[in-house]
Amino acid sequence: MIIKGFSFSAVAAGIKYANRLDLGLIYADFPAVAAGVFTTNQVKAAPVLLDIERLKEGRCQAVLVNSGSANACTGEHGMQAAVEISKAAAAALDIPEEMVQLASTGVIGSQLNVEVFQNHMIPLVDGLAAGNFEQVAKAIMTTDTVSKTVYRTEKIGGKDVRFMGMAKGSGMIMPNMATMLSFVITDARISFTELNRSLKSSVEQTFNRITIDGDTSTNDMVLVMANGAAKNPWIDTPNYEEYQLFQNALESIFKELALKIVKDGEGATKCITIRVCGARTDGEAETMARTVANSNLVKTAFFGEDANWGRIVAAMGRSGVKFNPDDVDIAFGDTVVVKSGRGLGEKAESAASKVIKENSFAVCIDLKDGSGCEEIYTCDLSVDYVKINADYRT
Amino acid sequence: MIIKGFSFSAVAAGIKYANRLDLGLIYADFPAVAAGVFTTNQVKAAPVLLDIERLKEGRCQAVLVNSGSANACTGEHGMQAAVEISKAAAAALDIPEEMVQLASTGVIGSQLNVEVFQNHMIPLVDGLAAGNFEQVAKAIMTTDTVSKTVYRTEKIGGKDVRFMGMAKGSGMIMPNMATMLSFVITDARISFTELNRSLKSSVEQTFNRITIDGDTSTNDMVLVMANGAAKNPWIDTPNYEEYQLFQNALESIFKELALKIVKDGEGATKCITIRVCGARTDGEAETMARTVANSNLVKTAFFGEDANWGRIVAAMGRSGVKFNPDDVDIAFGDTVVVKSGRGLGEKAESAASKVIKENSFAVCIDLKDGSGCEEIYTCDLSVDYVKINADYRT
Repeated sequence: MIIKGFSFSAVAAGIKYANRLDLGLIYADFPAVAAGVFTTNQVKAAPVLLDIERLKEGRCQAVLVNSGSANACTGEHGMQAAVEISKAAAAALDIPEEMVQLASTGVIGSQLNVEVFQNHMIPLVDGLAAGNFEQVAKAIMTTDTVSKTVYRTEKIGGKDVRFMGMAKGSGMIMPNMATMLSFVITDARISFTELNRSLKSSVEQTFNRITIDGDTSTNDMVLVMANGAAKNPWIDTPNYEEYQLFQNALESIFKELALKIVKDGEGATKCITIRVCGARTDGEAETMARTVANSNLVKTAFFGEDANWGRIVAAMGRSGVKFNPDDVDIAFGDTVVVKSGRGLGEKAESAASKVIKENSFAVCIDLKDGSGCEEIYTCDLSVDYVKINADYRT
Repeated sequence: MIIKGFSFSAVAAGIKYANRLDLGLIYADFPAVAAGVFTTNQVKAAPVLLDIERLKEGRCQAVLVNSGSANACTGEHGMQAAVEISKAAAAALDIPEEMVQLASTGVIGSQLNVEVFQNHMIPLVDGLAAGNFEQVAKAIMTTDTVSKTVYRTEKIGGKDVRFMGMAKGSGMIMPNMATMLSFVITDARISFTELNRSLKSSVEQTFNRITIDGDTSTNDMVLVMANGAAKNPWIDTPNYEEYQLFQNALESIFKELALKIVKDGEGATKCITIRVCGARTDGEAETMARTVANSNLVKTAFFGEDANWGRIVAAMGRSGVKFNPDDVDIAFGDTVVVKSGRGLGEKAESAASKVIKENSFAVCIDLKDGSGCEEIYTCDLSVDYVKINADYRT
């Protein structure tokens, strides 16, 4: 797929490793309507601070993104580097500096070598082509084992509206905002207000519902750019069907990217949905689902393919959510293992252990205390997670 | 050491494994003053529920404890089993049922076989001897690799007051109350009110300051029994020096046991103190220290002996505690790696990497924002932690 008016490029700049794509560029021929969501971590990387400021106008024409170094905890020197780099990109593209969004991912605390970026800016811009989206998706990978892209076409207001999305992330992943990088471009014609509304609501239901290790990065962002080339009727109010169609498309793209991230979770062998129903409120359901999804004991049991519901109950019990343990049902997929707080014994567990051998399954918890219901998506905690993260910098 | 008036026994009852001490008994010739702290997990095991009720009178004469099964999430059947077992112990010891405290540890959700307990009660009681304390400490082990005991004699009011303490626990360990089993006996003469006061304050500063994996068990308890045999002047007010001496002794015993638990953390290779100073309040210092101590990314970096302070900063930033990233100092032991928010570079990090190679070290974080200061004790997250917990039930 290509989207008219957008082009892409990536080069191996040697930021951390040689011969590996690590610098990418997304470019719109004209300023696109753009909205972003950024990390909630109090410690925000230099590019994030710059982006937030620049995105206030709701316009953006280029995204320059590097892996290999996060440019976080780098102080004034790091901010200076971010400014210099975006200057270089703006000059090479002949656009205003404020139209450049920056994203960095990699090791925290290392300073960027501005010269490396400057030296690669011309080849990067020269390489811009409508078909290079996958190259950029590769350039933003760190411990990711696969690049993650989604393509979609939706009929909105009688016009074909195209979407192309990419994401990276497989560690330091925990909601409270988009906790990885994701860029979605579309030719939808949409106002900043509606794009922003749709982005925030979609992120909440997708990227904010995944967790790999409970850690929230300093650098994460989700950015959507819409250039209007589809010439669909303007989407400028949430009240018409067109907005809903756009919103559905964006949310489903985010969800697909979010699940790709979970599946590629560091060392992950399984993708698990933790669904809590029957809670007093959605918020309580979410809190409990998140606590279960982040429990190392639950996650190691998943890795061991052990339907160890006792650990799930223990995590529920420390979640802070009030419930009656004697009411709880727990199922792996369709196989109930706990009914009204009691284990159903070995037969049920051996049936559940078949479910847990799948690459992807759901754990369903019913508190029978209300209509609150939420899902969190997570992965197991494996020996490889530890190995990857013990060796990451070496 | 022996303490007059206390005796101990343990047998291999085959509760889960054959030929392994798994049933222990602590017995006081006369009802001792006793105080306990129990898990804050909403899901409390049957023995815990029974104990809380029975301990209201502040007296206890026997503790019957088993490993191999937690008797948690076992419903009415489990409560019935707990009652039957304590009846059997009371009958064999010829004491009132209410004088028996029960503790169970092991797999959640499996039912106890009451007959097994009944069949072993006579040999268990027959084996009671003043010198068998270590045997009981062995019987309460689950994934522990070593038994954990502490002995201490303190001069209080001119008399030798003796303490013997034991603890178990190496997974599902996270504060918010004693999250493992610990029993301390002493011949101190102390009122229930003061014993209880001293217990609660000591637990807060010791067992509630350790974390291995952020999980809180359904079964945990700390119990102190004092039989008064030391004939020290009654400790019945917090205002005299004797109370302070008792309190200091109890707290130092708890701290020693707590650190033994961290050192024996599942798969742990290192014991790490996370110290946060310069916070606005002690509470904020504790919250931040706990977030850092529970971060999988921080803990895997410790395992990899990598002074990866970026992960520490990222965890600080998501702790919910407000601080100025540009003020932060971070040191490994005495080696400063971050000064006013900036990394000090490779030289400092290579010095820090020597510190991190030690079995035991401190990470010191200074926020320079106030006088709040707290420590949390934790261990690293290793490949073996995952292996142990993936295989635990098999």
